Amino acid sequence: MEQKEIWLESLIVKTPQEGFELAIKLSRMGVKYTQPDIEVLKKLRTDYANNASSLTAASHVVALNFQTVSKANNYWK
Amino acid sequence: MEQKEIWLESLIVKTPQEGFELAIKLSRMGVKYTQPDIEVLKKLRTDYANNASSLTAASHVVALNFQTVSKANNYWK
Amino acid sequence: MEQKEIWLESLIVKTPQEGFELAIKLSRMGVKYTQPDIEVLKKLRTDYANNASSLTAASHVVALNFQTVSKANNYWK
Amino acid sequence: MEQKEIWLESLIVKTPQEGFELAIKLSRMGVKYTQPDIEVLKKLRTDYANNASSLTAASHVVALNFQTVSKANNYWK
Amino acid sequence: MEQKEIWLESLIVKTPQEGFELAIKLSRMGVKYTQPDIEVLKKLRTDYANNASSLTAASHVVALNFQTVSKANNYWK
Amino acid sequence: MEQKEIWLESLIVKTPQEGFELAIKLSRMGVKYTQPDIEVLKKLRTDYANNASSLTAASHVVALNFQTVSKANNYWK
Repeated sequence: MEQKEIWLESLIVKTPQEGFELAIKLSRMGVKYTQPDIEVLKKLRTDYANNASSLTAASHVVALNFQTVSKANNYWK
Repeated sequence: MEQKEIWLESLIVKTPQEGFELAIKLSRMGVKYTQPDIEVLKKLRTDYANNASSLTAASHVVALNFQTVSKANNYWK
Repeated sequence: MEQKEIWLESLIVKTPQEGFELAIKLSRMGVKYTQPDIEVLKKLRTDYANNASSLTAASHVVALNFQTVSKANNYWK
Repeated sequence: MEQKEIWLESLIVKTPQEGFELAIKLSRMGVKYTQPDIEVLKKLRTDYANNASSLTAASHVVALNFQTVSKANNYWK
Repeated sequence: MEQKEIWLESLIVKTPQEGFELAIKLSRMGVKYTQPDIEVLKKLRTDYANNASSLTAASHVVALNFQTVSKANNYWK
Repeated sequence: MEQKEIWLESLIVKTPQEGFELAIKLSRMGVKYTQPDIEVLKKLRTDYANNASSLTAASHVVALNFQTVSKANNYWK
């Protein structure tokens, strides 16, 4: 379950947009820990990115991670 | 994963309704980061907007993002 | 994405039940921003309201929005 | 969207178990506002209560409402 | 909707692992209130426990209830 | 419902990345309590890890558990 590479140093980022992009990264890493094979992921991506339900499901996970990142940054207030 | 254009400057908005509209924008951006091709998105939208499950799923993501935006704005109290 | 009409003036309501009803309104508006055509929505509603999964999905979105409204009102304590 | 009958006077209950039961009530009311016809609901219930995915989906909504009720009651601490 | 038996006396438990196990209990009780017939539940369980989506859905509900229990226990800090 | 082995001693970890990995562990344990048979889990995993929806669903549960772990660690601030 552990990755040797450090990919997440901090939840603190400078702007809301960077926070949103970190949320996207977290969402993708949630996938990658389950399926680490990049070739498989690339193949799945073609179908995935052309299916409305899949895109909404992706946005759903991003929304949850964005809650976490926003809270960590006190909503950049 | 990064967008050059700045599309999210702040989570702070003046009214609950603007907050809801920001939540919708966040939900759509969650989709757009996964599928940036506007033509594909337009094509998917036709089916999507005529399917009850898809519409509920969209509203679901909006609800999550609205939680974040509402909290950021201290519920406009 | 913006609606000219003001439909959400405040998250603050007098009672938990009014809060629940506001949560329902928010859930429906999440749909309406994606599909603004009332005739399409009415047609979808017939199937929707007779399908157990759809009804649970609706209740799911209401639960999320009720979290937001309840928090905004400090749980009417 | 409004019900004349008062069915939710307060989120405050005496015990965690009563809180869980209130969460179930909230989950059911989320359904009932969308489909108020009791006969339809009864008919759907037979299939519903015999389908594993539907039962998990029900428990999911209860979990969300239980978050709200628990918070309202400061976790009965 | 009420159960005569007391099954939930408190959300406070001694360790995170006990908290996780309470979250599992809450998730199962969310099912049981909808389908109280143990024989039906047992029959559904066979399919359920052999289906990847169902298992993820179960873990999803546990995650939500674990949020509640962890918060109640101030994360055992 | 109880496991004799202690697998969760604390929610407190040193870094966000360790927190993410704990969130993955929690998500997997949510599955394992429902299906403890490792052989069944391994068999399901092959399909699971090659299906885009399943991978997103997995990432979804991780996001929820990461909310809990992040909060427990005060977002490593």
